[in-house]
Amino acid sequence: MPRWEPDAVGRLQAAALELFAEQGFERTTIAEITQRAGLTKRSFFNHFADKREVLFGPVSESQREIVTREITACPDDLPPLETVVYGLQAAADAIFETRRTAVTRRREILDANPDLQERELRKRAALTEAIAGALRTRGIDSDTAFLSAHAGMVVQQTAMQRWTQSPENRPLRAFLSDALLSLRTIAAQTTTQRGVPSET
Amino acid sequence: MPRWEPDAVGRLQAAALELFAEQGFERTTIAEITQRAGLTKRSFFNHFADKREVLFGPVSESQREIVTREITACPDDLPPLETVVYGLQAAADAIFETRRTAVTRRREILDANPDLQERELRKRAALTEAIAGALRTRGIDSDTAFLSAHAGMVVQQTAMQRWTQSPENRPLRAFLSDALLSLRTIAAQTTTQRGVPSET
Repeated sequence: MPRWEPDAVGRLQAAALELFAEQGFERTTIAEITQRAGLTKRSFFNHFADKREVLFGPVSESQREIVTREITACPDDLPPLETVVYGLQAAADAIFETRRTAVTRRREILDANPDLQERELRKRAALTEAIAGALRTRGIDSDTAFLSAHAGMVVQQTAMQRWTQSPENRPLRAFLSDALLSLRTIAAQTTTQRGVPSET
Repeated sequence: MPRWEPDAVGRLQAAALELFAEQGFERTTIAEITQRAGLTKRSFFNHFADKREVLFGPVSESQREIVTREITACPDDLPPLETVVYGLQAAADAIFETRRTAVTRRREILDANPDLQERELRKRAALTEAIAGALRTRGIDSDTAFLSAHAGMVVQQTAMQRWTQSPENRPLRAFLSDALLSLRTIAAQTTTQRGVPSET
């Protein structure tokens, strides 16, 4: 792994995502990407093993590192699901906040290329497992860790979707808090509450 | 699609899962499967396009049909997440209850074969999307449908895991109710509740 160089990575990704959007993922060459980014092929291969890695590479790894590190370091009194959201918010601030356009474009490219979605699902499963692992190192039992990690990923996906579609300029961190509240509301609704309308 | 024949499908699956467990997925041939099941190759290909379909075929499709049908037909006063669990419980009764050994074996085979896990993730994503779609046809907004479908799948995975690992003989339906309660508990925990231990 080369060291993390935000400028080169960011420029290459921005250029690649623009080109994927303009002419399709399959038809875009690495030469075109480096040309538009004003960088060399060598610089490209310093950061990405191949074209797909533009969509799945350093950013995903960096996200996993930050989320698991923050979960491990998180205050003791936070309950499991809030711990997960705490980690996801740290990664939101550090990685995604300045990349809303890139995240949106990436989403559109994945939606248009079913072949790429498998890799996305696999990456997401790996992140979920890493989160559950980080929770277990905090002494949380594996059943609760499993549930909290998966629930946290539902919060993450919901927040990302709302954030990229929202006309407002609120930070992703706020969307994560909102999505946690939405999940909490949906999980709390029971038949009794709604089935017996005007009692209690 | 041939019509649903529980006996042939069940026998072929049981034979295949036994053989996969004994000698590995890759090394098992369709001839061996049909021989052990006491059925013909023709019967195999009536139900499964290939060896992988034993793990992902008719049962997954049948599950999706039942879950979406039951969600669509579910009583109006059920809130969204309970509606999803209602559908999952119907499929649990109709499909999985009599197949605990097969479900457990299948899980072990998927765990041992990373290549197969992608297909599993894809199937799961398709089921999640089908559930969200069924909720939307009930007039539930797409944001709530998305969250409820994903939360429901977390309940499903948790329940399946506990059910296959449990020494007790409780029905999967009960594990689904329990997993919903666990999710509800985890989602409800807030810092305030735990951070301020002995007040309120």
